[in-house]
Amino acid sequence: MIQKPRGTQDLFLNSAAEWNAVEEKFRKVLNLFNYGEIITPMFESKELFVRGVGDTSDIVSKEMYEFTDKKGREFVLRPEGTAPTVRALIENKLYIPENLPYKTFYIGPIFRYERPQAGRYRQFNQLGVETFGLDSLNHDIELISLGDSFLKELNIEKDIIVQINYLVTGEERKKYEEQLKKYILSIKNICDDCQKRFKKNVLRILDCKIDSSKVKNGPKMFEFATENNKERLNETFRQLKEMGLKVEIDFNLVRGLDYYTGLVFEFKNIKTNQAIIAGGSYNNLVEELGGPSIPASGFAIGLERIMLILNEQKIKVVEEKEIELFIIPLSEQAQKLTNKLMLEARRKNLKIDTNWNIKNLKNGFKSAEKAKAKNILVIGDNSIANNQYSIKPQLTGEPVELKYNQIISYLKGEK
Amino acid sequence: MIQKPRGTQDLFLNSAAEWNAVEEKFRKVLNLFNYGEIITPMFESKELFVRGVGDTSDIVSKEMYEFTDKKGREFVLRPEGTAPTVRALIENKLYIPENLPYKTFYIGPIFRYERPQAGRYRQFNQLGVETFGLDSLNHDIELISLGDSFLKELNIEKDIIVQINYLVTGEERKKYEEQLKKYILSIKNICDDCQKRFKKNVLRILDCKIDSSKVKNGPKMFEFATENNKERLNETFRQLKEMGLKVEIDFNLVRGLDYYTGLVFEFKNIKTNQAIIAGGSYNNLVEELGGPSIPASGFAIGLERIMLILNEQKIKVVEEKEIELFIIPLSEQAQKLTNKLMLEARRKNLKIDTNWNIKNLKNGFKSAEKAKAKNILVIGDNSIANNQYSIKPQLTGEPVELKYNQIISYLKGEK
Repeated sequence: MIQKPRGTQDLFLNSAAEWNAVEEKFRKVLNLFNYGEIITPMFESKELFVRGVGDTSDIVSKEMYEFTDKKGREFVLRPEGTAPTVRALIENKLYIPENLPYKTFYIGPIFRYERPQAGRYRQFNQLGVETFGLDSLNHDIELISLGDSFLKELNIEKDIIVQINYLVTGEERKKYEEQLKKYILSIKNICDDCQKRFKKNVLRILDCKIDSSKVKNGPKMFEFATENNKERLNETFRQLKEMGLKVEIDFNLVRGLDYYTGLVFEFKNIKTNQAIIAGGSYNNLVEELGGPSIPASGFAIGLERIMLILNEQKIKVVEEKEIELFIIPLSEQAQKLTNKLMLEARRKNLKIDTNWNIKNLKNGFKSAEKAKAKNILVIGDNSIANNQYSIKPQLTGEPVELKYNQIISYLKGEK
Repeated sequence: MIQKPRGTQDLFLNSAAEWNAVEEKFRKVLNLFNYGEIITPMFESKELFVRGVGDTSDIVSKEMYEFTDKKGREFVLRPEGTAPTVRALIENKLYIPENLPYKTFYIGPIFRYERPQAGRYRQFNQLGVETFGLDSLNHDIELISLGDSFLKELNIEKDIIVQINYLVTGEERKKYEEQLKKYILSIKNICDDCQKRFKKNVLRILDCKIDSSKVKNGPKMFEFATENNKERLNETFRQLKEMGLKVEIDFNLVRGLDYYTGLVFEFKNIKTNQAIIAGGSYNNLVEELGGPSIPASGFAIGLERIMLILNEQKIKVVEEKEIELFIIPLSEQAQKLTNKLMLEARRKNLKIDTNWNIKNLKNGFKSAEKAKAKNILVIGDNSIANNQYSIKPQLTGEPVELKYNQIISYLKGEK
């Protein structure tokens, strides 16, 4: 039997409907915040992520699905969503002053060749929010309040706190990196990857699965912060608290990707210690990828993790539309009329169904029951000859006698 | 500058919103017909399409994006949606009697390495509808009426007709293929691909871009049809006509994929001669892919083509939600209050916005105008000190004076 690729999933029946309902909830909130969608391809040139995420990162160095096309061009299935969004911003010149601030989001599959685990897939889904052209305390706060609004919309804000930190930049960042390097030189035995990271991007060592604990007692980035940095972080904290968010400052929060500058934050489940939402500002990325120097910030949500929480807490998001009428046709003529009636009813926005495999009244009622329809209509040759149709509500069971052309208005609740 | 891969597209601003609105319209219609969504991975094992679509097809032999993972497994970006749906049906045992008929649909990207043309992309989007466990005249009719309902929902049914045909199966198919082979042997010079097709799957020659015209005067499949076949096609035609569809029988319609058995149909634009919707029944596919012997049928819609028609006919599908209030904060204190007010308002489902780059009244009003907000509120330190907020509707310009805690209920139109 041919199987789905390892680490991928099929969604069907209720799970697919639930998935779509969650996405629509996110879209609704994003619309209230005046964010518009962006849709980019599933694959991009490899170079985009080498430059945008960095070839010392695990994502780029180990976890990409790579392929070449017939002309030898190197592509990868997108391993994250920010670099493609920035690529599209630049390529389509969406950064022109009239468009700024450009507030956008993407929802869709992301691909990483990682070890599959419970709730972690090789093709998973991410919602990403990106703002271009804003660098302000107020926007930092608004962005975090957007993350909070998602959780509130889904009723999953329980047990979740926001941790924030402020990464220093410029001269202060350089000084910190120098001190960090000095500290690391005093440690023996760092792994091969970290040897490379030391040269190319020392900050990544803080995220190394092997060596991060060894640098725990080294210099802290926040010790290098300016008074402005500190004040901005503290003010962000105060205002979020005033707005009713559960928030704390965590100086150890540096985030996995080294393109962050300034604010970084995570919404974390305090019971599982898992991050639900994570982001920050990355003011250099647009320029690094060949665009103008404009500030940017955003965050991403792993949708599989959201679905897991919804399942655990038994929260149903989708509101299933009931079948208004299930028809049991008992002859060829009745089947023909059923098709005609169904088309007319559906054109009037009525959800209505039958099962063409119905052979007799008994398996007809079985099908109707399975469909959980509000009303049942049995059509035989007699009903057609006499233009008399008996609609039975499943709950009360009290039938209503109608002419053919009264059926639809009856179902629509019209007089 | 790094660019998107050739033949792919970015969608943003109105185009992405329009896209999502079209998808939601499709989902609405599908719900009325009681179809549920299925979501399968973007990539599948190569073998799935070799077996499911056939290695003599252009899709499989020339147009797949192929790659291997680190264990040497051969994958492809999915070049069509039916084989993955059938794979998921089998792997997840969705074919159990309680689930049948299983009525499902997918919406999403499909990948084919073809020559990019206007409206034709290497990553394009398809809506596919699939029904498992039904093989009846009535279902054929219902399926086509579903296609018709999509077009009506979008108001693009003008200039479009449905062409139908019925492909023979079993003994009759064998006889026809023998006669076709005899005829082809009498032709000189068929292309290399068709030499292979002749041996493996002679029907494909009918779709060959080079040789199809040469077999035009050969035997016609329908000449081999049984009386039952003919009656079913004629009855399908009659009933669709009675239901008000523009329908015609076209004996030359065989469809590109050779897995079709029985009904085939295309919704065709008579002006451009392009197929908008195409499908039919494929009763052997589930068994061929390792599942039980259950009938199946379905169709696919190319969404790019739909978008093209909507654009040409200047039909807007998305209903953009207006911004209820745009705030112009003129001080730090005002910015802080703006963030608080926005969060409260958005929690009450109000679409509300500001621009944190506003420096003064003048560029504040410019931003408000650009946002096309219904109302404007300027907040200065005075407004806060006096708890007096003056909301100006953009249209009438007659300001309304409110206390802070009256603003949201005013915007919501409450007393």
